Amino acid sequence: MSWGVDNLPYGVFSCPGQRPRVGVRYGDKVLDLASALHDEVFAAPSLNPFMARGRAAWHDTRALIQTKLTSDRFVTDRHLIPLDQVRLHLPFEVADYVDFYCSLDHASNIGKIFRPGSEPLQPNWRHLPVGYHGRSGTVVVSGTPIRRPQGQLGPGVFGPCQKLDIEAELGFVVGVPTSMGSPAGAFEDHVFGVTLVNDWSARDIQSWEYVPLGPFLAKSFATSISPWVTPLEALPRIPGRAQDPEPAAYLRRQADWGLDIELEILLNGEVVARPPYSAMYWTPDQMLAHLTVNGASLRTGDLFASGTISGPEQGQRGSLIELTWNGTEPIKLPGGETRTFLQDGDTVTIRASAAGLTLGEVSGTAG
Amino acid sequence: MSWGVDNLPYGVFSCPGQRPRVGVRYGDKVLDLASALHDEVFAAPSLNPFMARGRAAWHDTRALIQTKLTSDRFVTDRHLIPLDQVRLHLPFEVADYVDFYCSLDHASNIGKIFRPGSEPLQPNWRHLPVGYHGRSGTVVVSGTPIRRPQGQLGPGVFGPCQKLDIEAELGFVVGVPTSMGSPAGAFEDHVFGVTLVNDWSARDIQSWEYVPLGPFLAKSFATSISPWVTPLEALPRIPGRAQDPEPAAYLRRQADWGLDIELEILLNGEVVARPPYSAMYWTPDQMLAHLTVNGASLRTGDLFASGTISGPEQGQRGSLIELTWNGTEPIKLPGGETRTFLQDGDTVTIRASAAGLTLGEVSGTAG
Repeated sequence: MSWGVDNLPYGVFSCPGQRPRVGVRYGDKVLDLASALHDEVFAAPSLNPFMARGRAAWHDTRALIQTKLTSDRFVTDRHLIPLDQVRLHLPFEVADYVDFYCSLDHASNIGKIFRPGSEPLQPNWRHLPVGYHGRSGTVVVSGTPIRRPQGQLGPGVFGPCQKLDIEAELGFVVGVPTSMGSPAGAFEDHVFGVTLVNDWSARDIQSWEYVPLGPFLAKSFATSISPWVTPLEALPRIPGRAQDPEPAAYLRRQADWGLDIELEILLNGEVVARPPYSAMYWTPDQMLAHLTVNGASLRTGDLFASGTISGPEQGQRGSLIELTWNGTEPIKLPGGETRTFLQDGDTVTIRASAAGLTLGEVSGTAG
Repeated sequence: MSWGVDNLPYGVFSCPGQRPRVGVRYGDKVLDLASALHDEVFAAPSLNPFMARGRAAWHDTRALIQTKLTSDRFVTDRHLIPLDQVRLHLPFEVADYVDFYCSLDHASNIGKIFRPGSEPLQPNWRHLPVGYHGRSGTVVVSGTPIRRPQGQLGPGVFGPCQKLDIEAELGFVVGVPTSMGSPAGAFEDHVFGVTLVNDWSARDIQSWEYVPLGPFLAKSFATSISPWVTPLEALPRIPGRAQDPEPAAYLRRQADWGLDIELEILLNGEVVARPPYSAMYWTPDQMLAHLTVNGASLRTGDLFASGTISGPEQGQRGSLIELTWNGTEPIKLPGGETRTFLQDGDTVTIRASAAGLTLGEVSGTAG
């Protein structure tokens, strides 16, 4: 998988004893942008000031970095730091975090598990990308330990979550804000790039608390994201999936924003699922249009995620509740071990790639 | 209603051509704290840096201001600026915004309206303070115009919201953060003060979108708060309401955090309801304990609100959907006018007081 000049994701790194600043990943090194480009915007401890500059600046900066890396290696080498000498941080300051529910297969699976015998999809599902706000203060960078939450698991039942789960998702990071009252413009004018998301979920807390206002403590204890934000410009695009019924005018696609990204979910190093992003029903431009159609404003650093990515096949499901059918069909691991939900010490890693371009990984150990 | 030395709420103000900074309201004036106390923390454009200092600093600062105002008037007068010469801003930078659902009467009314004939309260309601995350980027200060949202009002129906509503609430502002994995300590060690909240709501958007992940666009277009944050120390406390069944151990009250606050809702200047905060079922310390029991961290600037405040009487309901029973019983206004939900140009003002101490007001005009 390539970390070459066609990739160049942005992140925030620090060397021992120094303050975090913005870099770009190239091979197994980080290009120190503040020094390589002589631009103070990259001396910030987050991508936000750079992301706020907008699409033309994103494009020009990327082109400049590509030129420097390919034609100016003698100079650039001085600003490349080996990855094993740096620490990676949360790449941006998260403003609002919204999580959608855009996979037809995921929503159908959840409906079948929780409401067997009835129509799996809710009446609104094919009319709008269902979404809700999550907790932005507990969005953490890959590698952060995930403490098993405690809470109410049912009436009179309190204790540590017994159904700790993951959700493999793609997150979209907003660079250019909007004013209240004005829906967002073109997707590529606002969205800077993408990150991998693991939306850790406590299924027992969730099923007891979520009526009628939605998931709350079942999700708010931690959401992990990958340290590298892949620029939108780097991603190959494909047509979105057919939609029936035809969506409302504000949700009609203006361009192709389907994404051909292959994900892998590893549980303690073993691949347990390969969810395809191409199977998603609602596209990211539709998420953005929906999020702002009511006049809600965007801020630099807003993160909106796709919801669990699941494909139609059994091995393409993006959560343990689907992979094990709510714990009734355990996953077999090497050495005779099985899993329904996560045990303390389990490590989950989500990797992704798109046409030879890697999006890196988001990883976390529960305990 | 008094804005005297027993009150002294904090806010952020600016004089023409100058940058916003922190002040305290005293009578019809604002005390410029950065100059009066020679402390740069008050030169910030938000209360956040001061709130982060913690409870001892909050107490000492309040005592110092009280001393200066009562014994040092000649000096202090130079730092008092008439309110009509300043502009008021959002008093703090909102980190995460959570909205609860703590009124038994409100939850019961909503249940009766939407599920007539069945048990009004959901099974979880008496076991935990139900809550969800809202959009912090659209929390605005009193006086900000409220644009009527557009959206999907049902399958195939798109247009401006026809059921624009209000929710009269009390908001609690977090000063002292916590780390991930550790539940919050004592309420008064974390919560700096209270603000009035109007959680504008699009009822037609809400009823179509909210299953299964909760309210989203129906609430995210705007949430108004009062410009003055009343310190917790200033508020008289009363015992909380009896609870049945006895709550889980983590929700058992360690101290009396019932609040005897009387609210008034004015529609175009006419009082249409007087919700009593004393009727609330879950107390603010229980909200905080619940919010963090799963290990979710707090940040300085977190705002959590009570949910609609409704009392048992018809004239004590805190939303139009309750006051007009979902539009079937219009409110009569002077001059023969009636209202079910808000019309363009309508102004809603929520005022509150506690034992002679005013909490000021939050106001907004829809259009």
